[in-house]
Amino acid sequence: MSDSGFASLPKPPYYAVIFSSRRSTQDDAGYAQASQRMLEVAAQQSGFLGAESSRDADGFGITVSYWTDEAAIARWKAQSEHAAIRERGRWLWYSHFEVRVAKVERAYGQVRAGLE
Amino acid sequence: MSDSGFASLPKPPYYAVIFSSRRSTQDDAGYAQASQRMLEVAAQQSGFLGAESSRDADGFGITVSYWTDEAAIARWKAQSEHAAIRERGRWLWYSHFEVRVAKVERAYGQVRAGLE
Repeated sequence: MSDSGFASLPKPPYYAVIFSSRRSTQDDAGYAQASQRMLEVAAQQSGFLGAESSRDADGFGITVSYWTDEAAIARWKAQSEHAAIRERGRWLWYSHFEVRVAKVERAYGQVRAGLE
Repeated sequence: MSDSGFASLPKPPYYAVIFSSRRSTQDDAGYAQASQRMLEVAAQQSGFLGAESSRDADGFGITVSYWTDEAAIARWKAQSEHAAIRERGRWLWYSHFEVRVAKVERAYGQVRAGLE
């Protein structure tokens, strides 16, 4: 489970925040910096379990962050630096985003050495 | 909500299958064809609500498919063509994958014209 990109998560139940977005064409440098910073800040939050993120060449991306419970998500939403950066996302970085908050009930996976 | 890439979903509750994966370096053509075909077959399944997908340049991707309920997910898992293609994924297309099945409890979003 040490493959970069994958979150190493406990057994369910836990919560997932599924953030789908299309990037605007604006402020690539500021966006990249803020994305990195948000991950660093999230990782310091109590209740943060991990995150996975992918963005394709067309600018459509999905980031899923994982949390112990709804209370941890609420604390993250209220975190001041996160709230400030989120506002920039709303009016600058994203032409469209959708957020779905979900309770993970079961999980499974597979790692195969030699297929890299 | 007609932005390509985004699923148009009903109000929660509904279910999400979060599929995170790293592509192997093998069989790009077969993988691309099967991915397209799976979306077509899924769209014909009862209980299928939509899907969103992103894969970055490093081969790490997230696909989230949305379903009315657990029973619809179980029917999809048993669908014969899907089961056959899934087997190829297991030993050929993915070096690592993780699946999390979650119940979406709430959702919100924002579309901003003029930011494309």
